[in-house]
Amino acid sequence: MPGASEGRRLKHWGWGHEDQQLPHEQVVQAAAGIRAHLGFGEGEVERPVPLEDVQLRAPRIQPPPTLAGICDSGDYERASHALGKSYRDVVRGFRGQFDHPPDVVARPRDEKDLTAVLEWAEGADVVAVPFGGGTSVVGGVEYTGERPSVTVDLRALDRVLEVDQTSRAARIQAGATGPGLQEQLREHGLALRHFPQSFEYSTLGGWIATRAGGHFATLWTHIDDLVESVRALTPRGVWESRRLPGSGAGPSPDRMLVGSEGILGVITEAWVRVQASPGFRASASLGFDSFHAGAQAVRALAQSGLHPSNCRLLDPEEAAFTGAANDGRALLVLGFESADHPLDAWLARALELCGDHGGAPTGEPRLRNPEDRGEQARGHAEGAWRDAFLQAPYIRDTLVAAGIISETFETAITWDRFEAFVATVRRTAERAVAEVCGDGPAHVTCRLTHVYPDGAAPYFTVLAPARRGSELEQWNQIKSAVSDAIEAAGGTITHHHAVGRDHRPWYDRQRPEPFAAALRAAKETVDPASILNPGVLVDP
Amino acid sequence: MPGASEGRRLKHWGWGHEDQQLPHEQVVQAAAGIRAHLGFGEGEVERPVPLEDVQLRAPRIQPPPTLAGICDSGDYERASHALGKSYRDVVRGFRGQFDHPPDVVARPRDEKDLTAVLEWAEGADVVAVPFGGGTSVVGGVEYTGERPSVTVDLRALDRVLEVDQTSRAARIQAGATGPGLQEQLREHGLALRHFPQSFEYSTLGGWIATRAGGHFATLWTHIDDLVESVRALTPRGVWESRRLPGSGAGPSPDRMLVGSEGILGVITEAWVRVQASPGFRASASLGFDSFHAGAQAVRALAQSGLHPSNCRLLDPEEAAFTGAANDGRALLVLGFESADHPLDAWLARALELCGDHGGAPTGEPRLRNPEDRGEQARGHAEGAWRDAFLQAPYIRDTLVAAGIISETFETAITWDRFEAFVATVRRTAERAVAEVCGDGPAHVTCRLTHVYPDGAAPYFTVLAPARRGSELEQWNQIKSAVSDAIEAAGGTITHHHAVGRDHRPWYDRQRPEPFAAALRAAKETVDPASILNPGVLVDP
Repeated sequence: MPGASEGRRLKHWGWGHEDQQLPHEQVVQAAAGIRAHLGFGEGEVERPVPLEDVQLRAPRIQPPPTLAGICDSGDYERASHALGKSYRDVVRGFRGQFDHPPDVVARPRDEKDLTAVLEWAEGADVVAVPFGGGTSVVGGVEYTGERPSVTVDLRALDRVLEVDQTSRAARIQAGATGPGLQEQLREHGLALRHFPQSFEYSTLGGWIATRAGGHFATLWTHIDDLVESVRALTPRGVWESRRLPGSGAGPSPDRMLVGSEGILGVITEAWVRVQASPGFRASASLGFDSFHAGAQAVRALAQSGLHPSNCRLLDPEEAAFTGAANDGRALLVLGFESADHPLDAWLARALELCGDHGGAPTGEPRLRNPEDRGEQARGHAEGAWRDAFLQAPYIRDTLVAAGIISETFETAITWDRFEAFVATVRRTAERAVAEVCGDGPAHVTCRLTHVYPDGAAPYFTVLAPARRGSELEQWNQIKSAVSDAIEAAGGTITHHHAVGRDHRPWYDRQRPEPFAAALRAAKETVDPASILNPGVLVDP
Repeated sequence: MPGASEGRRLKHWGWGHEDQQLPHEQVVQAAAGIRAHLGFGEGEVERPVPLEDVQLRAPRIQPPPTLAGICDSGDYERASHALGKSYRDVVRGFRGQFDHPPDVVARPRDEKDLTAVLEWAEGADVVAVPFGGGTSVVGGVEYTGERPSVTVDLRALDRVLEVDQTSRAARIQAGATGPGLQEQLREHGLALRHFPQSFEYSTLGGWIATRAGGHFATLWTHIDDLVESVRALTPRGVWESRRLPGSGAGPSPDRMLVGSEGILGVITEAWVRVQASPGFRASASLGFDSFHAGAQAVRALAQSGLHPSNCRLLDPEEAAFTGAANDGRALLVLGFESADHPLDAWLARALELCGDHGGAPTGEPRLRNPEDRGEQARGHAEGAWRDAFLQAPYIRDTLVAAGIISETFETAITWDRFEAFVATVRRTAERAVAEVCGDGPAHVTCRLTHVYPDGAAPYFTVLAPARRGSELEQWNQIKSAVSDAIEAAGGTITHHHAVGRDHRPWYDRQRPEPFAAALRAAKETVDPASILNPGVLVDP
């Protein structure tokens, strides 16, 4: 997996490193193939605006000399920290449109540096935006107000500081990326087993701040469940909870930080629950006549207490796009993992439940024990799906060049409303796409990423031909329509993508008003000058 | 199970109903047996002060006429709402010592009534103390300040309002007791499966407000995990979250109410996750040479991903007291339950793990499937333990009469510190007991009630001969010493008994100060007149 190694530079506008960007002729070739595959016909392929052609607003502030060593106001740093990685962000970055670049990018090396940055920011009325992998898809790292701002890049705080083998826990700095902490934990024979799609670049602190969803489909779906304690610096002191396996002492201090998206404090480290590597695996793929037939099986699985680690249901079109299946059926990718025991009984019962709901295995179930490490899952439907999962953000850069709207939105709903809810949201998305993109071919697909005894998290993907130059308006219109539909039908505006600035209107309608008032009061108390990521979650 | 049926009255000073109080001669007999069993020798048995001999402070306020129909200022109502059910409470109630009775007890029949009570309270500067089963063991329902107060008894709100079979969820009013909601859910073939020791009397709202621990030893240990959404009335409006199986939209509004102990709002109802009745069960009891050998096995179980529903480890003395075993070994009561599948594979692997750590089954493992409903677990070690579990609070009333200090305290700690921590806390308790009760026989026992991959919740019981008339000072001194030790050694002041007023000094030291400030600010925002349970969690 490509990590962020020395000497390589991340792209200032899209996913991954500069050396991972395909040469233009390959983009053209790939774009043609994708457009044909999607039925979009031919289309011109654009080139990204090079950084040297970008007119970046000049920095309006300078850090004090004491901070000069960790601050940078150069164009590359400011441009590459100006946006997240939503479709809106990639389109704008691709076009060289950086409307709200930070004035300074600070890279604290330790908490002392961070404290100094926050003190300067508070004293100088400068907004401070915490930044981990910069993979927000909800406008979480783009401060759009008028005050000068410093983006605080935490990636220098990337160490696993302590490993507690007995308790299976580790103290890890907030700026550690997925591969970075994985590599360090591997030396101890341990793993966090938290794989959001942004895994390669996003950071532990970002996951905690945004309540990120990992790859586990059941049980411990969000980072929330893996956090043992959190340490954050607020402008009014250190917010650090005790390491405890469980507690009943008042509302959880961690649960107030988890999902706080940088408005209460800057997370610097956390104790997280880790695991031995899962040597036992059992998996199968099953076809279902329809998405909703598959969903019935998934509901039975979620209520069975079997706790599959993977339980992704792809609708027929999505299964076909990812290359996992192409027979017009919905595909369920089912997996169990354990570091402790063979999973035969678990998988056998799961297959029975799927069979009860019309699921037919697409091949032989696979069982792996710790002696079979050499065997690869590649080539199987599950492997195909996983590759597509991690490749998707790279491909999107090509889609943007090819003039294809490509974005996702996700939510969660209880099972009683599930079928009608998915139908409504899907129809709304299809109508909105038709309205803004015309009646030509377009695709709205759905999968279930996380499932619960009482409901599921449907995840929608939109692929449609863009009108050049109007992509943002087009997507905003679609996003607004589907968000209205989700909110009205009782879903959540986000199951694991966070709120940021993009989801604010719907989030504000969704949350209880006294809670909003309480959260505002909490923020004012620990951040009285409102320097921390203002505009996210609450209004200053 | 004895519920709160019509015409019966709860004791004004101890556990259960008046008709469950043993006649004095039986108390004398039981006391003699218990004292002998504990090695405390003979002792006089006191009688509780009858209510008619109690000098209760006269009510200082009167509710407005519009609330007269749901308010009562009679001695029985005020006395029986003046205290919780800690040892301190039972001793005081037994002696007729009610220092802080509420001036009024209100029993709202619906939210309209409740709103009216809160409006009156705010307007008249009257403190409002939410009251469910009144089973707090931490001073959670005893307002000790100088303002007049109304205790708001929510037990009239006792209905299961809605059942969602598809999502396995139910909307239940906050005042429903354990048996009350169990009976209503049973009509739908469903169960909440949340059994705190106070199950018979405590209420759903109380469980949520105090982050109650249920009988599940792993996975879903606290009510926190069973809550899908909560509705509470605050003085500044309704705090009601959406029903969602999962969400990543900002810090969880539910998690801020869960554990708020009545300071933010009065919980009126919640959607909770329910289950089909578990027809499949597998259980075993195992002996270990020592508590710490057993704890090693428990750690392996907690880290195995097998998720036992019961995994209680009793130290040798506690196993003997509860009648579950008497061979000088620590006893592990292990159980699995499922509504979906036989548990043979689960139990088999668990027994292997226990064997790896020196555990020896005390009899044949028991496996039950849905066809074996007639078979009872009674007579087995597990059944004996369960009886003792629910009987303990009744017996304590007799212990108080018999002049025996009888109280518990509980905490949680990560596995790396577990052994030293338990030794320190136990030694501190033993020393404190010796100091306050003399060098005669006394008992400090320990069990594990809830276990986690990263730690466990040790639960201590103290039994010692009291010095008549000095019980409160004696217990306060012991409690203070062990709380200091727990706090200093990094534990939590409570794993599932809540903070209330009794745990405040240690809770204040344990929590992050910026969080405390944020919580105070949150409270001031939704309860600006500070009428809601002041003194709990934060200072007015």
